Amino acid sequence: MRADVSGVLETCLYADDLAAAERFYAGIIGLEVYARQAGRHVFFRCGRGMLLVFDPGATQRGQEIAGERGQLRHGAVGAGHVAFRVEEAALGSWRERLGGAGIQLEAEVRWPKGGRSLYLRDPAGNSVELATPAVWGLPAD
Amino acid sequence: MRADVSGVLETCLYADDLAAAERFYAGIIGLEVYARQAGRHVFFRCGRGMLLVFDPGATQRGQEIAGERGQLRHGAVGAGHVAFRVEEAALGSWRERLGGAGIQLEAEVRWPKGGRSLYLRDPAGNSVELATPAVWGLPAD
Repeated sequence: MRADVSGVLETCLYADDLAAAERFYAGIIGLEVYARQAGRHVFFRCGRGMLLVFDPGATQRGQEIAGERGQLRHGAVGAGHVAFRVEEAALGSWRERLGGAGIQLEAEVRWPKGGRSLYLRDPAGNSVELATPAVWGLPAD
Repeated sequence: MRADVSGVLETCLYADDLAAAERFYAGIIGLEVYARQAGRHVFFRCGRGMLLVFDPGATQRGQEIAGERGQLRHGAVGAGHVAFRVEEAALGSWRERLGGAGIQLEAEVRWPKGGRSLYLRDPAGNSVELATPAVWGLPAD
């Protein structure tokens, strides 16, 4: 079988405060928590893939997987970015939900070629975007 | 309409050398280049979403979008992580392709609960995983 990629399976962000990340991504963005390990990670299911939020102080030390101790180190510092796929007809509901949670939008963009985006920050300062697939010329669900 | 997220639309990584990133993600991983801006970014289509690779030195300064100059700053330093969705039957072809490109695997994991992963590094040092969706209990395509 051909070596092909059919999509992204894991998208990662980093956050020092994993409890705050969980309150944000589960409580406000509405993702389902799949697993958590205190001090190391909280994982969320997101459509056909996963959003993984790691404490970089833990993952920079590497991890043991199937005897591969000390391998698989990663962990970035500074603001990352993620965009979630939303429908244009839901943007009003999103504004209401975010406003109700006391979250201020950083920007709202109507893209010249089509599509719309709302920008906000997660508690760790990562740039979070709620975007319609038309931003990339991709079909809606 | 309800405020729901149906998946990740944009997954981001950071790399100082965008030309090297393009050679890796297009030439070896096989993603389609969607857009590039020298010194700032190279964007790839990936299934139902996008992989965005930014030079953090550029995006930390912010950007102008629809008049929002100076907003939307992001940019992380250190090794990020991404996993691409692949089929188990293609793992042999992947080993051949990566070996032919002179890329050494960092680890190969057969997960206890199912699914398999190959781990490698992109030229910027980001941890790249080729994983079957069974790793997360997700169905194959």
